[in-house]
Amino acid sequence: MNAADTATRAAEAVRRCHVLASCSEEPGVTTRRFLSPPMHDVHAQVRQWMQAAGMTVTVDHAGNVRGVYLGTSAPPQRLYIGSHLDTVPAAGAFDGILGVMLGLALVESLGGRRLPFAIEVVGFSEEEGVRFGTPFIGSRALAGSLGQDLLARKDAHGHTVVDAIRAFGLDPSRVGEARVDTPAVGYLEFHIEQGPVLDGLDLPLSVVDAIVGMSQLTLTFAGAANHAGTTPMTARHDAVAAAAEWVLAVERLALDTAGLVATVGQVAASPGATNVIAGTCTATLDVRHARDDVRGTAVATLLEHAGTVATRRGLELWHHVRLDHPATAMDARLIALLEQAVADTGAPAHHMASGAGHDAMVLARHMPVAMLFLRSPGGLSHHPDEAVREADVAAALGAGVRFLELLAAERS
Amino acid sequence: MNAADTATRAAEAVRRCHVLASCSEEPGVTTRRFLSPPMHDVHAQVRQWMQAAGMTVTVDHAGNVRGVYLGTSAPPQRLYIGSHLDTVPAAGAFDGILGVMLGLALVESLGGRRLPFAIEVVGFSEEEGVRFGTPFIGSRALAGSLGQDLLARKDAHGHTVVDAIRAFGLDPSRVGEARVDTPAVGYLEFHIEQGPVLDGLDLPLSVVDAIVGMSQLTLTFAGAANHAGTTPMTARHDAVAAAAEWVLAVERLALDTAGLVATVGQVAASPGATNVIAGTCTATLDVRHARDDVRGTAVATLLEHAGTVATRRGLELWHHVRLDHPATAMDARLIALLEQAVADTGAPAHHMASGAGHDAMVLARHMPVAMLFLRSPGGLSHHPDEAVREADVAAALGAGVRFLELLAAERS
Repeated sequence: MNAADTATRAAEAVRRCHVLASCSEEPGVTTRRFLSPPMHDVHAQVRQWMQAAGMTVTVDHAGNVRGVYLGTSAPPQRLYIGSHLDTVPAAGAFDGILGVMLGLALVESLGGRRLPFAIEVVGFSEEEGVRFGTPFIGSRALAGSLGQDLLARKDAHGHTVVDAIRAFGLDPSRVGEARVDTPAVGYLEFHIEQGPVLDGLDLPLSVVDAIVGMSQLTLTFAGAANHAGTTPMTARHDAVAAAAEWVLAVERLALDTAGLVATVGQVAASPGATNVIAGTCTATLDVRHARDDVRGTAVATLLEHAGTVATRRGLELWHHVRLDHPATAMDARLIALLEQAVADTGAPAHHMASGAGHDAMVLARHMPVAMLFLRSPGGLSHHPDEAVREADVAAALGAGVRFLELLAAERS
Repeated sequence: MNAADTATRAAEAVRRCHVLASCSEEPGVTTRRFLSPPMHDVHAQVRQWMQAAGMTVTVDHAGNVRGVYLGTSAPPQRLYIGSHLDTVPAAGAFDGILGVMLGLALVESLGGRRLPFAIEVVGFSEEEGVRFGTPFIGSRALAGSLGQDLLARKDAHGHTVVDAIRAFGLDPSRVGEARVDTPAVGYLEFHIEQGPVLDGLDLPLSVVDAIVGMSQLTLTFAGAANHAGTTPMTARHDAVAAAAEWVLAVERLALDTAGLVATVGQVAASPGATNVIAGTCTATLDVRHARDDVRGTAVATLLEHAGTVATRRGLELWHHVRLDHPATAMDARLIALLEQAVADTGAPAHHMASGAGHDAMVLARHMPVAMLFLRSPGGLSHHPDEAVREADVAAALGAGVRFLELLAAERS
């Protein structure tokens, strides 16, 4: 495929993302939650494009669109390429969707040529966790880890995941059939970075080394509510001041630790009145790192610091660990192939960890996985102004074509 | 009056506070907002005690109970003694009420003797600002400053102050008649300290020099909401971290400035999610000092600091001044008499500023005012466990009797 073809296919992939962005629950913005009505339109459109590319298309009973392009191998082997088709409310056009459109473009770029493995392009039904508060419903179904507890979860209207599947015209009793049953060469996911790193470095692409592990905690500093006018400064046990001291320690530790991000995104003071010293202040903590030992040490250090602050100020500290999810390494062999593919197209083979979770994280428990990030201009995502550059999409597509060639060469 | 009589009267004043605490909107706790139904029971009880003490009792059309004990002076002059009869929700028995009961006890201690001025004991209908969000309805009526805007304010059920007055059986068109029309010798208010200062010094009483001036502001740090996982620490404009830095500066300045209290009682982050860097953080500021120049400088310093923090972090700062109320000096002559009275009873004549507003603040615009604080054990107030020591009440009563003697001697 020459450069002009690649540019044309990249422009078409971007155009298709905009077409799908018009399938929305709300006029004027793109909002498409798990199996909401506009997902029918997305399925119809994607099915049409996939069939035109010579793929056999099904929708499994977890609502994933799956297009299979057969290979020459016997026994059958399959490379999975995918990302998600659902969005956050008031989303952009590319988060998830672009990964599916690039999988489709890769199949189209083969021009009917067969590889020694089949390619299955998957558009996952759910990754964002918006409707049911739990992400990865689609990829969990492929991984066979969609448990009864998740299927019984309710959305804001009291409808369960099972209800949603049935309302969409699918059969929840057949969700188990979505599980991958063909030996997997691996899983490849293209995704926008959703952060400012590549834009800051002026690079189009990055190979992903790992998806960071994540800890989420809630801490409560409990002092004594008191009158803001009659309580001298030295007689206070001010929960807001204690939390403030700790928030700065969180920021300092993360600035001083390479690769660590740590965030206090939510704070709430109680009773929360202008003229009352806060008796309690609850704050959330989100800590991420590609190495679980670094993350574990950071969380322990920050809890110890919070305890020290609380004790010095005469407060109590309570904490609750809500999430402790290990880091997910990408497959070393696929990373090496993807690196080679990027280098062969002439782009610098940058590496980085993903700070956000992706479907690749779920599939990594069952097959080798790899991810390629595309630059997010301005670092913007989960926003109507989310963008990609067509030249970056062309670079990703070129790297993908080369990746298929390298993988085919290795297999033949 | 000998010490045994004083102790007996003090015990009776405490007992009466407990009797009135049983008049409540809610079973089991004391909650008595402006002209709520239990205020009828309070009025009936207070009226009975006042009449038994030889006073002529009326309820004005702002709902204040007013008992007049005539003097010998011609033309008539009047010393006002009072505090408020309303409470916060789940209140203690003494905030406000004790000042009214001590006024009554002082009249009773005269045993029918007449002074060269009349005494009017006032139980104000409203000081806490709970029902209508604005305090001092009762004392504003005496000061003639109960404006139409305040009378039109609505409570949580949409009822105006005018509706509340009418529902209580009073005539809102006659609120103007509540205004003080007899030449005033002054206004004396006994009140619990509602803070830990006297308890910390192990002192029963303090003469109040001034009621602090108060500034209340809202500040908003506006940065950029972003993904907690994909945004490197150095690329953040974190509104919670900026606010935290400023909260510590508020605390530091107040610790370093004698007599200053400064409080950030409410903080709110937006969007306020564990995995999102906060784009905005709104915080309240409450600054109080007995000297308006010190308070003004402190507010300016803290706003400048907030601006510096915001600029350094690449955020914007907005602020809104919600309240800028000057300090209220007590009357120098009445302070001197009250000091003398306290000293004559053998107690140390401690001085302090009041960090909270009181009815005396409103009346100070129209007559000389003085206040005497009683120790709050544990600094506790606005709480069911709010307490006073009977010995402290006896000390306050003794000082009050002596104050009347000194004032009478000065007038005769």
